[in-house]
Amino acid sequence: MDLRSELEKFGERARGAQRRLQGADSAAKDSALRSMAEFLRRDADNLQRANRKDLRSAEEAGKDDAFIDRLRLDETRIEAMARGLEEIAALPDPVGEITDLRYRPSGIQVGHMRAPLGVIAMIYESRPNVTADAAGLCVKSGNAVILRGGSESLHSNMAIAERLRAALGKANLPLDLVQYVNTAEREAVGILIRMDRYVDVVIPRGGKNLIARIRAEATVPVIMHLHGNCHVYVDADADAHKALRVVVNAKTQRLGTCNTAESLLIHQERMDDLLGPIAAALQEKGIEIRACERGLPRIPGAIAATEEDYANEYLGPIISVKVVDDFDAAIEHINRYGSQHTESIITENYSHARRFLREVDASSVMVNASTRFADGFEYGLGAEIGISTNRLHVRGPVGLEGLTLQKWIVLGDGHIRS
Amino acid sequence: MDLRSELEKFGERARGAQRRLQGADSAAKDSALRSMAEFLRRDADNLQRANRKDLRSAEEAGKDDAFIDRLRLDETRIEAMARGLEEIAALPDPVGEITDLRYRPSGIQVGHMRAPLGVIAMIYESRPNVTADAAGLCVKSGNAVILRGGSESLHSNMAIAERLRAALGKANLPLDLVQYVNTAEREAVGILIRMDRYVDVVIPRGGKNLIARIRAEATVPVIMHLHGNCHVYVDADADAHKALRVVVNAKTQRLGTCNTAESLLIHQERMDDLLGPIAAALQEKGIEIRACERGLPRIPGAIAATEEDYANEYLGPIISVKVVDDFDAAIEHINRYGSQHTESIITENYSHARRFLREVDASSVMVNASTRFADGFEYGLGAEIGISTNRLHVRGPVGLEGLTLQKWIVLGDGHIRS
Repeated sequence: MDLRSELEKFGERARGAQRRLQGADSAAKDSALRSMAEFLRRDADNLQRANRKDLRSAEEAGKDDAFIDRLRLDETRIEAMARGLEEIAALPDPVGEITDLRYRPSGIQVGHMRAPLGVIAMIYESRPNVTADAAGLCVKSGNAVILRGGSESLHSNMAIAERLRAALGKANLPLDLVQYVNTAEREAVGILIRMDRYVDVVIPRGGKNLIARIRAEATVPVIMHLHGNCHVYVDADADAHKALRVVVNAKTQRLGTCNTAESLLIHQERMDDLLGPIAAALQEKGIEIRACERGLPRIPGAIAATEEDYANEYLGPIISVKVVDDFDAAIEHINRYGSQHTESIITENYSHARRFLREVDASSVMVNASTRFADGFEYGLGAEIGISTNRLHVRGPVGLEGLTLQKWIVLGDGHIRS
Repeated sequence: MDLRSELEKFGERARGAQRRLQGADSAAKDSALRSMAEFLRRDADNLQRANRKDLRSAEEAGKDDAFIDRLRLDETRIEAMARGLEEIAALPDPVGEITDLRYRPSGIQVGHMRAPLGVIAMIYESRPNVTADAAGLCVKSGNAVILRGGSESLHSNMAIAERLRAALGKANLPLDLVQYVNTAEREAVGILIRMDRYVDVVIPRGGKNLIARIRAEATVPVIMHLHGNCHVYVDADADAHKALRVVVNAKTQRLGTCNTAESLLIHQERMDDLLGPIAAALQEKGIEIRACERGLPRIPGAIAATEEDYANEYLGPIISVKVVDDFDAAIEHINRYGSQHTESIITENYSHARRFLREVDASSVMVNASTRFADGFEYGLGAEIGISTNRLHVRGPVGLEGLTLQKWIVLGDGHIRS
């Protein structure tokens, strides 16, 4: 069988399993998720054995330590996966939620009902825990998922997926709600993302190249996770203490995440009293500073920023700094260089706070808070499958609701349109 | 200047105008919409003069009466356009609406704020009123729109767009919130739908060929309006009077719309008492009936249905009829042949009503109501830009909310993540 036909079989099985799931109740889904957790815990040894094969290949291929660390499945991480599944099981079922049901002048009642998206193709790289997280979120939200991880974690992913399927079986749910595409052929991704008839949405999680490729080639709608070039803007009326605290946290609490601040904007009225102390605090944490012409003389040890620096997502111990003339210049800079991920203003000025929230075009817009808060757990979603920079459908952290749609329901009593 | 550069200029101007609009308040937008209405009314003569050019070309090209009727702009239709704009002005402003703002354990407040999609490219055919409807809905929801109508209505569309722009000027809003692409070159559409940098969403309205082309070629996200193969299913426990009323209304109240029923399913227990009277009532209204094997002998004058009939959207005086074994067979048939537009069950059975709402996968699912209700005005949206069969973002009638997104807002007081 050729690759396309093989993948279409995956699609057909997923479609069928997803349709059969619609008759199942919330308890069956939750029980499957708890069994998944149990099976992962019970088989931790076998999972680690499979994982060692991947680790060995990665070492032989000369991958760096960070890569190998991301790949590693130890007891703690297996326990975290299991607990993650139990936490998803404990969340309310989003499917079937009815909202806004109201009587219309015609006499019909009209409202929304939440329903699954259908079949989700999850394309991801390196971290094997995504296999369990994604499967848990998809099943809970009534979807079927076709998983395609990177070749570097093939054995780990397959071992995890096998336990997840066994758990579905134990709960009398269709095994094909979770399928893992284990073919080595690279074209598999290219086919999956154009399989409109069988796949309703593609969710990629991985590096820029993966996302760019999927964006260019997919005909199936994509929930996109682009890079985060996040700013903190210190306004003229910023409280000095809050500014210092938030900028340092936004930049240094974790360096490699998409909600880490990559650029500091500061109002010119504060470049004399505030820029120095903030820069010093960042440098103390090992951050290199690349500053504009006005910022440079006020920051010992800083180097000059280029245009490129303002557009860059460093994902590392560097920050760009720009002194701006006023509030409007800050918004213009953000809308020009930002990646519409997460933007924060530090201000005590009521009108500026209000305008910033409205006029800044990003998936999360904040006042006096660290960009690091942009996260499904912090927002109360319980778990997230990614952070979307889509404009359509879902923007920001994507939890169970983001994996559902709203259809209209109409209740009548023999009503007809006149 | 080549076509691509020219269209990118449209995109740049739209982007700039849309950003400038974010500072404007609701009153300015509403005043622009009311001026649009006023300018269309005042210039009704000139609009009709422009329209006559289009009508003449259509006649010379030998277009049929239905085509020419759709194209015609008479006093009544101009008045309807103007009133439509005033009705949009009277709707609440969706932009900036904050919902679900709640304190999280960390102390931050997290919620949603509704914001415009950005720049919308509207690609449409024949009816010139779409020019005013789309522009009104887009501006009210804070978006800029690039309009591209069919060549058959070029003069009418341009004349309308000119008045809309003049009204924006009067209200001190950027004229480029509404732009009309008047180049004759057919490739314009192909470029617009791949101009990711300048266009945030494409909304096509027109025939199947147009939609299919855009679906295949667009890289910009599309709010799709596919065809409607809608069913009414008469269940074993249907009330005879309601079944008769609803089926006749769903099929015959208007023949050419996407929410018109194209197929009648009936439970085998009702084929003897109910199928005959329903079929006769439809035939009396001039509807041709194509029935399955079991239905055929019970409907004098019916012809045999083929597989193709069950998948067909007739948009005319024909209906397919199928007798099904039971409730599950009805759902299976709908999920197999339906186009996920609008599906209705006629039943007094509580459990079947409940299951139908949940298990049928369509943008509108109804109980004891005519499929013809699937409409923005009937649902209380005030106005609609189309009926979406997307799974992502918006499903069913698309009003002002469908032209917006929800971003996250976070309010803190110097909060940092630990």
